Amino acid sequence: MPMDEPQTLRIRQVRIDTWRENVAYLHRNCPVVRAAGFQALAKVAVRANGMTISAVLNVVDDDHIVQACELGLSEDAFARLNVGEGHEATVAHAEAPVSIGALHRKIAGERLDRDDWHAIIRDVAAARYSKIELAAFVVATHQTELDRDEVVHLTDAMIAAGRRLDWGTQVRGGPVVDKHCIGGIPGNRTSMLVVPIVTAHGMLCPKTSSRAITSPAGTADTMEVLAQVELPFERLTQIVRETNGCIAWGGTAELSPADDILISVERPLALDSPGQMVASILSKKIAAGSTHLVLDIPVGPSAKVRSMPAAQRLKKLFEYVALRLNLQLDVVISDGRQPIGRGIGPVLEARDVMRVLQNDPDAPHDLRQKALMLAGRMIEFDPDVRGGDGWRIARDILESGRALAQMQAIIAAQGERQAPVLPGALTQEVPATRSGTVHTIDNLRLARIARLAGAPQVPGAGVDLLAKCGDVVKTGQPLYRVHAAFAADLRFATGLAEQDDGYRIDERADIGRGFEDSAP
Amino acid sequence: MPMDEPQTLRIRQVRIDTWRENVAYLHRNCPVVRAAGFQALAKVAVRANGMTISAVLNVVDDDHIVQACELGLSEDAFARLNVGEGHEATVAHAEAPVSIGALHRKIAGERLDRDDWHAIIRDVAAARYSKIELAAFVVATHQTELDRDEVVHLTDAMIAAGRRLDWGTQVRGGPVVDKHCIGGIPGNRTSMLVVPIVTAHGMLCPKTSSRAITSPAGTADTMEVLAQVELPFERLTQIVRETNGCIAWGGTAELSPADDILISVERPLALDSPGQMVASILSKKIAAGSTHLVLDIPVGPSAKVRSMPAAQRLKKLFEYVALRLNLQLDVVISDGRQPIGRGIGPVLEARDVMRVLQNDPDAPHDLRQKALMLAGRMIEFDPDVRGGDGWRIARDILESGRALAQMQAIIAAQGERQAPVLPGALTQEVPATRSGTVHTIDNLRLARIARLAGAPQVPGAGVDLLAKCGDVVKTGQPLYRVHAAFAADLRFATGLAEQDDGYRIDERADIGRGFEDSAP
Repeated sequence: MPMDEPQTLRIRQVRIDTWRENVAYLHRNCPVVRAAGFQALAKVAVRANGMTISAVLNVVDDDHIVQACELGLSEDAFARLNVGEGHEATVAHAEAPVSIGALHRKIAGERLDRDDWHAIIRDVAAARYSKIELAAFVVATHQTELDRDEVVHLTDAMIAAGRRLDWGTQVRGGPVVDKHCIGGIPGNRTSMLVVPIVTAHGMLCPKTSSRAITSPAGTADTMEVLAQVELPFERLTQIVRETNGCIAWGGTAELSPADDILISVERPLALDSPGQMVASILSKKIAAGSTHLVLDIPVGPSAKVRSMPAAQRLKKLFEYVALRLNLQLDVVISDGRQPIGRGIGPVLEARDVMRVLQNDPDAPHDLRQKALMLAGRMIEFDPDVRGGDGWRIARDILESGRALAQMQAIIAAQGERQAPVLPGALTQEVPATRSGTVHTIDNLRLARIARLAGAPQVPGAGVDLLAKCGDVVKTGQPLYRVHAAFAADLRFATGLAEQDDGYRIDERADIGRGFEDSAP
Repeated sequence: MPMDEPQTLRIRQVRIDTWRENVAYLHRNCPVVRAAGFQALAKVAVRANGMTISAVLNVVDDDHIVQACELGLSEDAFARLNVGEGHEATVAHAEAPVSIGALHRKIAGERLDRDDWHAIIRDVAAARYSKIELAAFVVATHQTELDRDEVVHLTDAMIAAGRRLDWGTQVRGGPVVDKHCIGGIPGNRTSMLVVPIVTAHGMLCPKTSSRAITSPAGTADTMEVLAQVELPFERLTQIVRETNGCIAWGGTAELSPADDILISVERPLALDSPGQMVASILSKKIAAGSTHLVLDIPVGPSAKVRSMPAAQRLKKLFEYVALRLNLQLDVVISDGRQPIGRGIGPVLEARDVMRVLQNDPDAPHDLRQKALMLAGRMIEFDPDVRGGDGWRIARDILESGRALAQMQAIIAAQGERQAPVLPGALTQEVPATRSGTVHTIDNLRLARIARLAGAPQVPGAGVDLLAKCGDVVKTGQPLYRVHAAFAADLRFATGLAEQDDGYRIDERADIGRGFEDSAP
């Protein structure tokens, strides 16, 4: 079979979701496979209509998936190449991404310069790295801690590789404020409180959030109990013009796409290095057009950051990078010894949020206090607000009902959910196994129990806390109630709780002092 | 959709070759996907017939690939689970492999102990690591250099995780000898010469080799020009009983399977750390039952090892690990400034080998000398041979024709190839662009040209060297001849040669001294 010119193949969509990795499916009898000596997992360059994408090759032995003259593309790859089925394409061995030399220098432990970081992130954002190369990058940058300027370059490169929003005409030089928590604390739904408060104060706060990845609920999942969160970008900007804010899912805005790709590898590896965390959070915020950010770092034995010195180091790194990239940053180190509020899971957390907005006496005190503190810090970004007045202004907005009205306006603008979603009807309480004072509540354990109960896929599933740190409990008294929609889920979740309920109960009653004293 | 028990699915083979990664294909509408909240790339545990395998999930949107109640398995996964189509199976979130904590400690830069290494390699061999986790392991062990005892544990663990051959009854305590080169030098086909020589001397040398991965020919590819190399293990042992040796492909023997899996990730990353190399080579040799090994480390500017100090460090590491694992090891540091022999590519290399065995005056001198040196060192493992006599004994066996007769016996036992394969009929010579003395020949460049010409997929393709180091050449005189079967291949290969022919030609004639002097 002489082959004088690269043979063309016809494109066919193979409807397999390979999660951000481009996969090309070629039949084992495809002349190109035989002539070029491709092996499965080889990286290939697919060219069609002037576009080139790189993809990992899977070799197919079934004519029903692809035929010998066809080039199958996974759903992501097909969308990325963006030409129709039946279109002609050629396949060749992929050249290594231009940044692969920089990757190897990072693996060898070298410091990379600005151009290196931009080259790597451009290749990552264009999906030119395989999963294996992505994992190599993530581990290499994790193992040899990045220096501060490398984190600046990484962050800047991640911003440059995506879309960047500009609210300038709308705010006429005023601040575009945002608030972010590094995560790890179940029930910590302060965003849904600070957005109505600070937008009622007249500040612009276009909040886009993620869905839960490993947690029982993200802000987007919880807001979705009340309103639409998946909105086209044009509609979002219109809502922000009308109401000063929004609480929406950020997945459609193409902000810092390299970050999403890196997270798809960091998550299965459970790696979360300071440099990656800072670059991930700040690149998303700056790309979203924020000029001022309050950042929440909870500290506690089962939080992401477990000691005050570690929190201080992380704070300095955030501050250094923010300063270089012209973002006004106020870092808050907060109490992470237990979940915030009572509910864990979308419906239960939405209930807590609405109770705070309604000034309901049953509203969880800690969620209310934390939201007021954060909103106060955001309000103090307003040049017309005196230092120290933010908290009082936030409280007035909440107590006057203006925050609730503002939330209702945002919900109406995004599209109110018609049928209210209720907490899961199957419940079981988990009792205290000893008497004493609640000392700490394991965030990871409670998150895992809530996930086994079905959250966030089942919005009404989760855990409702009936005792918090400092509460005195008696043996047999319920610590929390598990909600589920399905019997098997309830059984799995309570089974895990029986092994370890996640509560540390001490006979002594030495809780309640500043959390800093007890952080290890 | 209440779900009280894990739902069973019916297994279906999805005929996609995913190259050692287990992939499970579930339809997006599969009740299990919806209930358990699986996402693409999640790791799942597949259970059927008492067996459990872990797999990466791909979500399918096409009923023709899998239906909602089916569990599709990639070819590797289907073979590994080893139950028929239509068999019932359940799917659950995979527990993290037990060794994942050790992996994280390695990423954090810690030294791992014996139990950690064995746990990791057990999980790798059982395909419980995803590609991402494998890449993380490879980079982590590359970035923080392993200490010598860690390499011992890694090697030992790799042996323990696979099959181990024992030739004890056959040799009655005598040596089982082998020879290995760390690679990187095209044309270096000494194995096909030392096996007939040392087995003619009466030593047991059951040689299993690899196919080419990134090179233009492996020993298995070259031997395949002359004889069958894919033989069932039982037949191999029978051949070794009859002839003392064999020259076969080692891929079927399940020796050190973790090594094969790790290589599938190291190769695309082009990572080759000393610790991984030592563990890879020694685990394969010890698992194959070798008691004595001659190891060849070529040094040169385009070899894997580029300086004499680096070669010495690698030698010491090999010696340390071999001593701990009871392998008698003799390390040879050899000249790696140019390819060995004349031919590069399976057919051309087989021609060189046969010329040496036939004592043909046209046989390449350097290949003959290197083979005699290595065979001599192996023969000196024989307790009855005086130190220093090995080379002479090897030469006598070669010159007397006994080596050729022995090679013919091995070829006949493995199954002679009927039709001789000829060098590619399309040829083009690459001329010298200046006059002078050949100083070095770039191994990587020549390997790449030979691969573009079609080797090893097209056995007759490759490069035939017409000038070697120390030869005096004139402008326009041919340096080498490219052989190909297809016009496009010839064009690609000669196109690369035109950019850079890989030859360094100096006007001075200062070559020919000991290679150690010229190693950088």
